[in-house]
Formats: sequence, structure tokens, C-alpha cells
Amino acid sequence: METTIEKPYVIGLDMGGTNSVFGIVDQRGTIKAQTAIKTTAYPDFKDYVKASVEALQPALDLVGGISQIRGMGVGAPNANFYTGSIENAANLVWQGVVPVAELFEEALGVPVRVTNDANAAAMGEMTYGVARGMKNFIMITLGTGVGSGIVIDGKVVYGSDGFAGELGHFVIDHTPAGRKCGCGRSGCLETYCSATGVARTVREILENSTEPSLLRELKAEEITSYDAFLAAEKGDRLALEVFDRTGKILGTACADFTTFSTPEAFVFFGGLTKAGEYLMKPLREAFEANVLRNFKGQTKLLVSALNGSEAAVLGASALGWE
Amino acid sequence: METTIEKPYVIGLDMGGTNSVFGIVDQRGTIKAQTAIKTTAYPDFKDYVKASVEALQPALDLVGGISQIRGMGVGAPNANFYTGSIENAANLVWQGVVPVAELFEEALGVPVRVTNDANAAAMGEMTYGVARGMKNFIMITLGTGVGSGIVIDGKVVYGSDGFAGELGHFVIDHTPAGRKCGCGRSGCLETYCSATGVARTVREILENSTEPSLLRELKAEEITSYDAFLAAEKGDRLALEVFDRTGKILGTACADFTTFSTPEAFVFFGGLTKAGEYLMKPLREAFEANVLRNFKGQTKLLVSALNGSEAAVLGASALGWE
Repeated sequence: METTIEKPYVIGLDMGGTNSVFGIVDQRGTIKAQTAIKTTAYPDFKDYVKASVEALQPALDLVGGISQIRGMGVGAPNANFYTGSIENAANLVWQGVVPVAELFEEALGVPVRVTNDANAAAMGEMTYGVARGMKNFIMITLGTGVGSGIVIDGKVVYGSDGFAGELGHFVIDHTPAGRKCGCGRSGCLETYCSATGVARTVREILENSTEPSLLRELKAEEITSYDAFLAAEKGDRLALEVFDRTGKILGTACADFTTFSTPEAFVFFGGLTKAGEYLMKPLREAFEANVLRNFKGQTKLLVSALNGSEAAVLGASALGWE
Repeated sequence: METTIEKPYVIGLDMGGTNSVFGIVDQRGTIKAQTAIKTTAYPDFKDYVKASVEALQPALDLVGGISQIRGMGVGAPNANFYTGSIENAANLVWQGVVPVAELFEEALGVPVRVTNDANAAAMGEMTYGVARGMKNFIMITLGTGVGSGIVIDGKVVYGSDGFAGELGHFVIDHTPAGRKCGCGRSGCLETYCSATGVARTVREILENSTEPSLLRELKAEEITSYDAFLAAEKGDRLALEVFDRTGKILGTACADFTTFSTPEAFVFFGGLTKAGEYLMKPLREAFEANVLRNFKGQTKLLVSALNGSEAAVLGASALGWE
């Protein structure tokens, strides 16, 4: 017989610029019901909340109604855990400060927590994923950008302002050669180790060498990190070199990050991790070669095992248990 | 009338390679009594503890005996907060693992906590110094080496192994030009921003330029950071350039560290801070020029106001209140 848990489910909301995906999740990380709305369709945030509640209703009915819900977690860009608001998110339809937690709490009558995508991913790994049982680890998300969620003593680090854990904007090249970043500065980790950073590396090597490559058959400006992966799969040396450089840069940066909080593990998540050993082998080698002697051989370098399409909703939902 | 506090004092022990200094401290950070023994005189750690207790006795009598002591804190090299031990400290007479907390608890009958010097300094600033009331700050100690103590949510970060907060060994120059470090690697922050790092910078500039300088009158290998300070005080341009470079490197590194935990402040402590604005002005400028846009103008860059000779004992004692 199963133990009956009071309020055995949480709601996770993965709020993207285009779509908003909701999931109702149990303690094992199984998504019992899922629904979605268009984020862009509601220029007034109050209408967005109303539409969300309507869309959620059938899913809630499936699990026995809102009385079965412990809480709700929202993963969203520029979300501030402390205030429960989204603040000046460039990629969302709403301007200024949006009191997400407050309005959803009013509408649903359950506690609501918000945080950014990378922190939500860290919560997801700690609650349902490869970081279960870990108290100190660093989540690195490798998507269009590079995000991070830092867990110390079992808690996500939010810092003095709610926006801690921006390791994608750690500057790894302070020389004039550092790549221009969307943040207005140069040399940020994310200009090298995001999916777009990998595409930049491809174009850079294509331009500066005459090495033959399958990637030369594509229009340079349209090449993606996935193209590089496909070429690597066919043994393309230039593509392999691209992942080698990327892994080295990321492994070296993580070795340096270790001096901060000596995490038990780094957990990597996102599109780029599909490159598997092409990325992870040079990453591990660079990490071990560069990490401070006392920390050698001690840190796990893991790839998230959460299903990619579900991970964002699971991560957000993990906040609902708090 | 004063409120009577039960057990109103703590013992602080600053355990150095040569001397061990003890202080009995009240909640305001006033050292009520002080004593010291030679660390090197006791090759057996049990004799060291015995000698410590004997030396402490008159100081304890002054405040009403051990019954007035809440606890004891020890700041020592390679001290592990989690285990209460010193582990393989190169600069101490004892080899291997020394159970410091356990043996002092046995001898004194009060709770004992140990940590390394930089973490103790952070505790001292938070308890009695410029970081009072702060929950998120980073302590940077600028001595023979560079140490750090990271405070998040009001607690020192010890990480997965008790040795977190080694920002002196963050590699800021991964190129072959990075300076050799005592840790066996190259380019560590401490090779540039410690007192010895500053002396290296002096020698480097002296060798690579013909600029006249008061520092040319000294034997190159004997020049210290204090000589550079004295020269700077006389308006020596080369010496000013040395502090300018040092401040820029440190400010740039701190700007990057901000992406980790968005501290409310960095607190600098140690001999080098005597250089005052020669160091702090370029440091502040580099910090503001390099920090991520959202964090600009938000972080305090402070110099410890604790009396240098008392700070180590005060820092250690702060652990005794926990």
C-alpha cells in the first residue's frame, strides 16, 4: 500500500518567450498532466493568469482538484526569487516588473515561487535528477546562452539581489580578442560555450583555415551547433576540433569555479550536451588538468538525465515543494 | 544597567606557524585579555594544548573563569570546519591530521570550532567589523598569499569538503605568461595580488623598463610591497604603476566573482590594504568597468576597519559564538 501524502502534487510552469508549458508533477518527478498556452497572446499579465488557470483546470481535475496541490513553481527569464517578480525581461511581452507569484497565488490559492530557468534546472536535478542527495553542486545550462544555478548546503544561491549564479557572464577572456557578448561586454563564457558560441567557433575555424570539412557545404551564417554535432558524428575533423575547444574552455572555467564552493558535482544540461563525449571528454580532461591539486579526482562532471522536453517543467515544479 | 549575558565571552586563537595568540573577547569585539605561546615549541600537539590551557589560565581568571566562556574559535592554516581538524598544513610543526577541536574541547570543556584564517577573518568582519548586518559578502585577505572567505545567507561557505573559498587560486591568466604559483599551477590571482605578487610586479617592471624609480636603489630580490608603498608615498611613478596594475587585476577579478554570489560587498584585509587609495582607486574603477550591467554601482568595496594586529584573534573568536 502507498502512503497517502497530503497534497501530493505540485504545478510547474516553464514560461518561455513564445510558449508557456504547465505540468502537474508528483514527488517522483512524473508529470501526471500537462497543458500549454501561448505566452505572446496575453499582453496584459492578468489575462495571462486567467488563461493559465482556465488551461490548468482539466489537468487539475485529473488529479483531484487544486486541493491536491502543494504549491507552484515558475521558471522564467529574469525572475527574482526574493520578490516573486519578473524584472525587465527582454524576451517576454510584459515590460517592467511583473508580480508573478502574487497574482498566481491570488488566482490559485497555493504558494507560488519563481526563479530563472537555470536555478529551476538546479532544483529539478536536486529533486528528481542526477543531483538527488547532493548538497553542493553547480548546474550549467548550455542552450542559446549559458546559465547556471549554484547549490550550496542544499539551497540555491540567490545572492544579495536574487540574481546570483550568472556564470555564463563570467569573463574568461579579458584580452581585446574576447568575443563580443550580448551583455555589452566581451569574453563572457557564454560567447564560447553556448550553442551560438559553438556556431561562432565553427565559423571562426572555417574562416581561418583551409581544412576540408562537411561544414563548408553549409551557408556559414546558418550553421548551428547541431550541424557541428552531425558532422562530428561522421568523423569530420574540423567539427571534432570545435567540440574539443569548447569542452576545454568549459572544463577550464569549471576548474576555476571549484575554488569558490568546491561542489561535489557539475551538472550539464541543454542542447549542447547532445554532443556527448565529443564535448565531455575534453571537458573532463581540461577540468582535471586545471583544478587545484587538493580537488583533483574529487568532482563529478555529470550530464543531466532528465528528459529534455520535460526538464524545464520539472525544474520549475521542484520549487513548488519548498 | 547592563543586561547580564550568560557566558559573555569567547576565546579566539590565531594559530600561526611561529606564534599562537589567544584573546578573550566580548560581544562588542573588545579583547579583554590576551596571551601567546610559541607554536613551534610543542612538536607533540597534546603538549601544545596543555601549554595553551596553562597560558590561558590568568586571562580566564580575569574574566571570572571558564564558566564565563561561550566557546572557542581557532583560525589556522588548512583547518577544516567540518572535521575540526588541521589537515596536512605545510607551515605548521604537526604532520598529517590534527584533531584540534576535539582536543581543545576535552581540555577546556567548551565547544570549539576551527576554520582557516580567511574564513575566520570573514566571521570577524560579520561579527565585529564592517560587514556587521550583511548576509552576503566576500572577504579577500591580501597577505603573503591571497585568501578568501565567502559568506552567503549569513553563513561562511565551506563547500563539499570544508575547503571552499580558495579565490587566491582562481586562475586569472591561463596563457603561458601566467606567473608560476606555489600551488604548482600558473596564473593564480595570488601571484599578482598578494604582497609577494606586488613585489614580483615591481621586479618585473624594473627589469622591463628604464624608468627611473626610487625602487632601483634597493636590491631587486629584497624589495617588498611595503617598499613599493613607501615609494608611492613619495610620488614614485613606477611604484604607483605597480599598485595601479594590482588594483586593476583585483578589481577585474572581483567583478567576475560577482557573477557567482552577487555579494553586497567585498571586504579587503591585510598588509596590502595599507596602500589605501593607491590600490583601492584602480580596484574600484576596474570593478565598475568590468562588472555585469545589472550589478553596476551596487557592490560596496570596503577595507576592513579592524585593528590589524587584533583582527586575526577577533576573527577566530567570532566562531566561538556559533
